[in-house]
Amino acid sequence: MSEIKKAAIIGGGVIGGGWAARFLLNGWDVIISDPDPEAERKVGEVLANARRSLPALSDVSVPKEGRLSFASSIAEAVSDADWIQESVPERLDIKHTILAEIQKHCPADALIGSSTSGFKPSELQQGAARPEQIFVAHPFNPVYLLPVIELVGVQATLERARDVLDGIGMKPLIVRKEIDAHIADRFLEAVWREALWLVKDGIATTQEIDDVIRFGFGMRWAQMGLFETYRIAGGEAGMRHFIAQFGPCLSWPWTKLMDVPELTDELTDMIADQSDAQSGMHSIRELERIRDDNLVAIMRALKGRNWGSGELLNTHDARNKPALPTAIDAPFTTLERVIPVDWMDYNGHMNESRYGQVFSDAGDVVMQMVGADQDYIASGLSYFTVSNEIGYLNETHLGDAIHVRTQVLEARGKKLRMYHEMIRTADGELLSTCNQLLIHVSLETRRACEPEGEVLAKITALGEAQSKLPKPASMRD
Amino acid sequence: MSEIKKAAIIGGGVIGGGWAARFLLNGWDVIISDPDPEAERKVGEVLANARRSLPALSDVSVPKEGRLSFASSIAEAVSDADWIQESVPERLDIKHTILAEIQKHCPADALIGSSTSGFKPSELQQGAARPEQIFVAHPFNPVYLLPVIELVGVQATLERARDVLDGIGMKPLIVRKEIDAHIADRFLEAVWREALWLVKDGIATTQEIDDVIRFGFGMRWAQMGLFETYRIAGGEAGMRHFIAQFGPCLSWPWTKLMDVPELTDELTDMIADQSDAQSGMHSIRELERIRDDNLVAIMRALKGRNWGSGELLNTHDARNKPALPTAIDAPFTTLERVIPVDWMDYNGHMNESRYGQVFSDAGDVVMQMVGADQDYIASGLSYFTVSNEIGYLNETHLGDAIHVRTQVLEARGKKLRMYHEMIRTADGELLSTCNQLLIHVSLETRRACEPEGEVLAKITALGEAQSKLPKPASMRD
Repeated sequence: MSEIKKAAIIGGGVIGGGWAARFLLNGWDVIISDPDPEAERKVGEVLANARRSLPALSDVSVPKEGRLSFASSIAEAVSDADWIQESVPERLDIKHTILAEIQKHCPADALIGSSTSGFKPSELQQGAARPEQIFVAHPFNPVYLLPVIELVGVQATLERARDVLDGIGMKPLIVRKEIDAHIADRFLEAVWREALWLVKDGIATTQEIDDVIRFGFGMRWAQMGLFETYRIAGGEAGMRHFIAQFGPCLSWPWTKLMDVPELTDELTDMIADQSDAQSGMHSIRELERIRDDNLVAIMRALKGRNWGSGELLNTHDARNKPALPTAIDAPFTTLERVIPVDWMDYNGHMNESRYGQVFSDAGDVVMQMVGADQDYIASGLSYFTVSNEIGYLNETHLGDAIHVRTQVLEARGKKLRMYHEMIRTADGELLSTCNQLLIHVSLETRRACEPEGEVLAKITALGEAQSKLPKPASMRD
Repeated sequence: MSEIKKAAIIGGGVIGGGWAARFLLNGWDVIISDPDPEAERKVGEVLANARRSLPALSDVSVPKEGRLSFASSIAEAVSDADWIQESVPERLDIKHTILAEIQKHCPADALIGSSTSGFKPSELQQGAARPEQIFVAHPFNPVYLLPVIELVGVQATLERARDVLDGIGMKPLIVRKEIDAHIADRFLEAVWREALWLVKDGIATTQEIDDVIRFGFGMRWAQMGLFETYRIAGGEAGMRHFIAQFGPCLSWPWTKLMDVPELTDELTDMIADQSDAQSGMHSIRELERIRDDNLVAIMRALKGRNWGSGELLNTHDARNKPALPTAIDAPFTTLERVIPVDWMDYNGHMNESRYGQVFSDAGDVVMQMVGADQDYIASGLSYFTVSNEIGYLNETHLGDAIHVRTQVLEARGKKLRMYHEMIRTADGELLSTCNQLLIHVSLETRRACEPEGEVLAKITALGEAQSKLPKPASMRD
């Protein structure tokens, strides 16, 4: 689709701006039409968000941004556009007027997507010059990050649209039949309605409802959806078992909303067959482990953001944080932990840089021990790592409990040299070693200088106690 | 709660096994009662999953596992238990029988939670010896990973239960009033019902439904729930605006399920006030960025698992992967990328180990250039990194586009020395340097040896072309 290059965005709100960002950051030229005098500012705000998020999803270089411009009319915007995206307010009369104006001025083979969350393509196409040109391309906010697009309309048009969306890294999903609200918004509607009842009846607050979602099934749905999750719940017996076990619950008086499809053998078979086609290449045990690895990776990702389930984990870690080592007349344990799945690559090897992280974390513990902490850094002094000589001795596996044994080899003046051994706790196997050199610096002059005050006293004492010990055996090999 | 130490698990299926794992891996002794002769095997399978996932959520050392045993009767299991968790089949008559047996033998101050997803505590308590002792503690599968627990029952009992669950790293949520199916399952029921209609009516397959969830709103719900997400959608005008804009949609004929609470001013105020209490400490712009950072972190976490939205990103990266450098008569660009949010710590600094990752990735490109690739490794030969001397020159920020310029300093025999410069692309600022020494090894003998065949020819040519170039300026400083 390299010939498709220009997108016209009709309506520059949060959704239109999100579309603009998606195209622009994937190298397309984008022209925006919106009568709102604030449109340029609003689109600019969405773009600022997108620029700080979307490119960093990639681990390779990203395309050069396209050119952004604003049109004074729909005619100007669409005259040579390859993709036209309508994101105007959800009123059918407005959409009809705008779509008519678009078709009057755009190329006959341009793709015209509508961001409508509620209308069917047959409704949008009413009275159109070329009905087959108009289709639903329903995105999810933020459009510059969430990949899925519901496509509804004429198959041949949708296939062209799908190729374009594939090319800009999205996940187009062709909906088989048109229906009010397409697919996802039917779920969102159902959940929103239940949530309103729960708040109204005083069962839960908005915060409690959000927590029950994000600390629970929300994380399941970020990686598997409804059916794959329940396939696992059914165990080795699979989807048929799940439906047999939980299906009847639907006729219980659980919600205020009652009309439930009858679970005939035909419907059960249909679901079970589709589930087999979707997930049958994995055993339930495999699916469990994939699910668990995904959940761990998601929760650990949120840990880095200190948010939601990740904040909870950080709180729990803080409660379990071990005391700093105090016995310094021998090498001491600086770190104990288990190797998590997000440190492994596809091939099940621990990423090389994570060894560096383990040793850097171990070195940080020594910094804490001598008082070279956040306050000390704030005072303008710090240790910088100059070099890590890492030896890789044995393979580290997912789930290995490891600890690091540290010896301070030299702590004199500006120079601090440590030696770390990373050991598998279960069998005492030496996995990796690190000869680490740090230099004490002034953050102001960015030059080496002597440590000061209590840090100087503590690091000197530590150096004197440890440097006269015999060198670790692995160093002498 | 350090005095609470023993959990009795009544019913050892997937849910009971998950509870057992949660307690056990948090240092509790666990005793299981289940008449199923397969119970020990089944619990063992859940435990095996839990052991490979739960401990690695922590970045500090984890508690020593408690002792696991199996009881021959409920009486034996509960006689000295501090927490008793009932997870037997969802039939009220069965639950009544089991709960009566538990209360006959357990301490009067033991906590008795039920995993029921549907029954209210008042139903469970019918005819009980000490009704206030019995409460709902409804978990989500997998119990050893998902933290949320819905607690329903008598307040004083629930507060004790909450303290216990806090202590084992969970997220207890006290439900304000009892209601069939508590909170989360009402949402799950509503979504499941809609999904059945969509499959039955041929609108979407199970795969398509799952995709629309996991590539879309599922990721939103893994980190913010329903209301916080919609608060953002409402923009600066917030929740009241959102309800005004989208509330009326609920009366549209979108779903087969119709009974919608009337959006009175009172209900609108209640929701808006609760939303303020929940999220009002952040502006909408802040919430947008928190959301975006969370989404990026989640998607990049799934990228590491090559699953769902992460697999999509990997596919897109593969399509955009740049060609290997071919001009070797000058230092060459080995890597171009943008700094992602999951590389930053809380304080907005790039984690030290990620510099190592950048340089390791840059070194990998040179490996690809000389043919020391997966096949070469499979043949038993490889380069090992011996040391990285990393210089930290200027601060790297989130979203910085960077590239690495690499010069091969020496490539003779077993030894390969490279020098990498990490440069901010926007302003050409040198951020970090790495003097990297690799040694060619036989993976069989684990000793240094000369490279072979085409790799030898290519690395020698590369070394000859590059080592005679002037040293990079930053090396000479």
